[in-house]
Amino acid sequence: MTAVGIDAIEIWTGKLKLDLAETFAPEKGEDPEKYTKGLGLHASSFPDAHEDIVTMGANAAKRLMDRKGLTPDDIGRIDVATESAFDNSKPVSTYIAGCLEQVYDGDFHHANKGERKFACIAGTQSLDDAYNWIKAGRNRGRAALVVATDTALYARGDPGEATQGAGAVAMLITEDPNLVELSTEQGYGSADETDFLKPNQQFPSVDGKRSMQVYLARMREALEDYESVAGASHPDDFAFIPFHTPFPGMVRKAAVLAYRHMIRGTSIEEDLAEDIGFQPREEDFEDREAYEEAIRDHMDDLSSTEAYQEWYDATVEPTLSISRQVGNWYTGSVHIARAAALKQAAEQGVDLAGEKLGVGSYGSGAQAEIHAETVSEGWKDEIEQLNVDDQIAGRYDLSFEEYENVHDRHNHDKTIEMEDFTVPDGEFVFTGRGRMNERLYDFVE
Amino acid sequence: MTAVGIDAIEIWTGKLKLDLAETFAPEKGEDPEKYTKGLGLHASSFPDAHEDIVTMGANAAKRLMDRKGLTPDDIGRIDVATESAFDNSKPVSTYIAGCLEQVYDGDFHHANKGERKFACIAGTQSLDDAYNWIKAGRNRGRAALVVATDTALYARGDPGEATQGAGAVAMLITEDPNLVELSTEQGYGSADETDFLKPNQQFPSVDGKRSMQVYLARMREALEDYESVAGASHPDDFAFIPFHTPFPGMVRKAAVLAYRHMIRGTSIEEDLAEDIGFQPREEDFEDREAYEEAIRDHMDDLSSTEAYQEWYDATVEPTLSISRQVGNWYTGSVHIARAAALKQAAEQGVDLAGEKLGVGSYGSGAQAEIHAETVSEGWKDEIEQLNVDDQIAGRYDLSFEEYENVHDRHNHDKTIEMEDFTVPDGEFVFTGRGRMNERLYDFVE
Repeated sequence: MTAVGIDAIEIWTGKLKLDLAETFAPEKGEDPEKYTKGLGLHASSFPDAHEDIVTMGANAAKRLMDRKGLTPDDIGRIDVATESAFDNSKPVSTYIAGCLEQVYDGDFHHANKGERKFACIAGTQSLDDAYNWIKAGRNRGRAALVVATDTALYARGDPGEATQGAGAVAMLITEDPNLVELSTEQGYGSADETDFLKPNQQFPSVDGKRSMQVYLARMREALEDYESVAGASHPDDFAFIPFHTPFPGMVRKAAVLAYRHMIRGTSIEEDLAEDIGFQPREEDFEDREAYEEAIRDHMDDLSSTEAYQEWYDATVEPTLSISRQVGNWYTGSVHIARAAALKQAAEQGVDLAGEKLGVGSYGSGAQAEIHAETVSEGWKDEIEQLNVDDQIAGRYDLSFEEYENVHDRHNHDKTIEMEDFTVPDGEFVFTGRGRMNERLYDFVE
Repeated sequence: MTAVGIDAIEIWTGKLKLDLAETFAPEKGEDPEKYTKGLGLHASSFPDAHEDIVTMGANAAKRLMDRKGLTPDDIGRIDVATESAFDNSKPVSTYIAGCLEQVYDGDFHHANKGERKFACIAGTQSLDDAYNWIKAGRNRGRAALVVATDTALYARGDPGEATQGAGAVAMLITEDPNLVELSTEQGYGSADETDFLKPNQQFPSVDGKRSMQVYLARMREALEDYESVAGASHPDDFAFIPFHTPFPGMVRKAAVLAYRHMIRGTSIEEDLAEDIGFQPREEDFEDREAYEEAIRDHMDDLSSTEAYQEWYDATVEPTLSISRQVGNWYTGSVHIARAAALKQAAEQGVDLAGEKLGVGSYGSGAQAEIHAETVSEGWKDEIEQLNVDDQIAGRYDLSFEEYENVHDRHNHDKTIEMEDFTVPDGEFVFTGRGRMNERLYDFVE
């Protein structure tokens, strides 16, 4: 069987930064730790005036193509995952291909282009489509380009306003991949939920409490479904577990749920039982409510144990370092979590080749998907190519008033002009609208 | 190699009808033949007050599941293709699954749900995703449900107003399919085009002339790309050629282009040369413009030949019979073309098993895809289950004033109440909006 997976990844952050502790908290009259400790976020990325989902996606894709020495003829499929689309018919992938055709010889006329939507999980779904396309023998030796790009904006004053973000992740899916190999084993937890919606609107309507419950419920289902095909999981199975990260605080809850599930019936549960007892079993309780309360109490205890903390610090915490600085990127979020963990391992000189990652993707509405990936031999050389630290450090630091303008600038219901805060340099930029209201792009040398 | 393809298909038309000759033409002060002969359309389907893309899709899916005796556990993937979505985050497939869960035991929590967007070609792209998913070995013995559902509405007074339509096609993708088998061979023609857009709007902005040119240019590219993997095509290869059908007049143009391409260098071209000369070759002309004019003249001559007419009447005309009565269904359009042809063959007692169909899908923006399908042994039993003729005949025939109300009712920017024209009977209906503005549905016995 040919190995198929992610050969390379590139990240493009929106070039503006809103500092939550220094800028957002004071304006809101809140303790900065509400954001930095509660949510686990330090800053959000925002798009500059000349940026949008197309420019961020095209810029990430161009970095990837340049670095891998690719031409359009090497790419047979371009899929974009987004929940920030600005057209109800024409897919963002056509715009991105149009951008790339401005700077490369040849064209993408032979490439199947598409767009997937399912809240934040569509990036992983597009990765799966690309994997399946190659496995089905339809790729004619070509690679797939998957771009997850979003401007995760909330209405001003919405509780989600502190979790905004903007950025794109471009991934190259190939045979014999250099970064990670995927497999056919997947677990799903998927239900028709009303937790987070954008009914004919740009900014989401969110039931925050419900959204967190649904995230955890679907993750639990997905883990059970995954184990039904891949066998029981154990905390030691995975070097890292990148989760979808709307904000790191959410991942803390998902991680303890996953850990509890994985240690059930293992020697770890037995060892911990001396301190915190065995996990509550549903059959021991009179009703579901009493059982769930017991589970919550047990998870509080579990999350305080040294065994859990060690596992969390090694396996989950490293996935959050980029997210803390850029906020929620929706479809790209779980993919920057993977990149963050691999980046840290590379920096620390850990040899990950052959190790497994457990990847937990999620989209409101709602669906979780869990799969494992095997780290490839070439992973370190690939991940060391990322310049995301420089990008994050180089962002323009917005004042609150500037942030307000930036939010308005990217509000589809407003038409305001805004001066660029940064100077485009070797990148695609949005230049205005054409005669049919289509968005227009140029490459700035 | 396991055969994978379409096992079953079901069609659900919007339950209202606008007669173009009797109702639309008089109001517009136009000759009815502008529509019936020029466009090749007799009527458009519209959704009743209780219908939308979810109800039409869920009703088609329920007919399919009932007839095939399926339960939710048999289905591992639900993908919806649409360019009429009403939410920028939550996919229509979750709503459709929610509907189906109201009437079946069990649930679809294990099923991967998604939504694809690329104008009218997303239905075929979703079919391909499902095929690839099974071929990649990820389906665990389960089938995929693909639903193409759209309300193809144009702004009142737009030139496209006569080509509207509304309906859904549900397709079951399985191993050893009863209807048609797909293969890995596909051809693409795809470019970043500004011919038809919906920039943050429900109704399209269309450059009609450009849109027709782009349809033909992308189809030609796709045919060349298809032949590069499948070998040269010949008119005799295909029992039927279903094209994407925005209106039958468009297909007339695509058909002669395909025929000209397929006969080039064959004995058919030689035989025809006595009457209409050989096809112009670009190298014989001073410039591209002169060549294209010669090509247009030649295609006019070609389309008048007996050989072409016989081929067109046998291979293409039968694909148009449903479309003529229901208008443009966007993502479902090419799939009702396939169904129309198979239905006519079944009615005429033709044995198609083992014969090939050439399928030409298209989406503005713009991309064409061409592939071949092999008709399966069980095709006749499957296609005879369709009740689309009864559905078409049973539609409520709108007056022009009623049509105006129906258009307003389904205009996302208006909120008008409207009495139902038809009485729901054993079907899913839209019942209103919930607290987060989510659309709500019930099953009416």
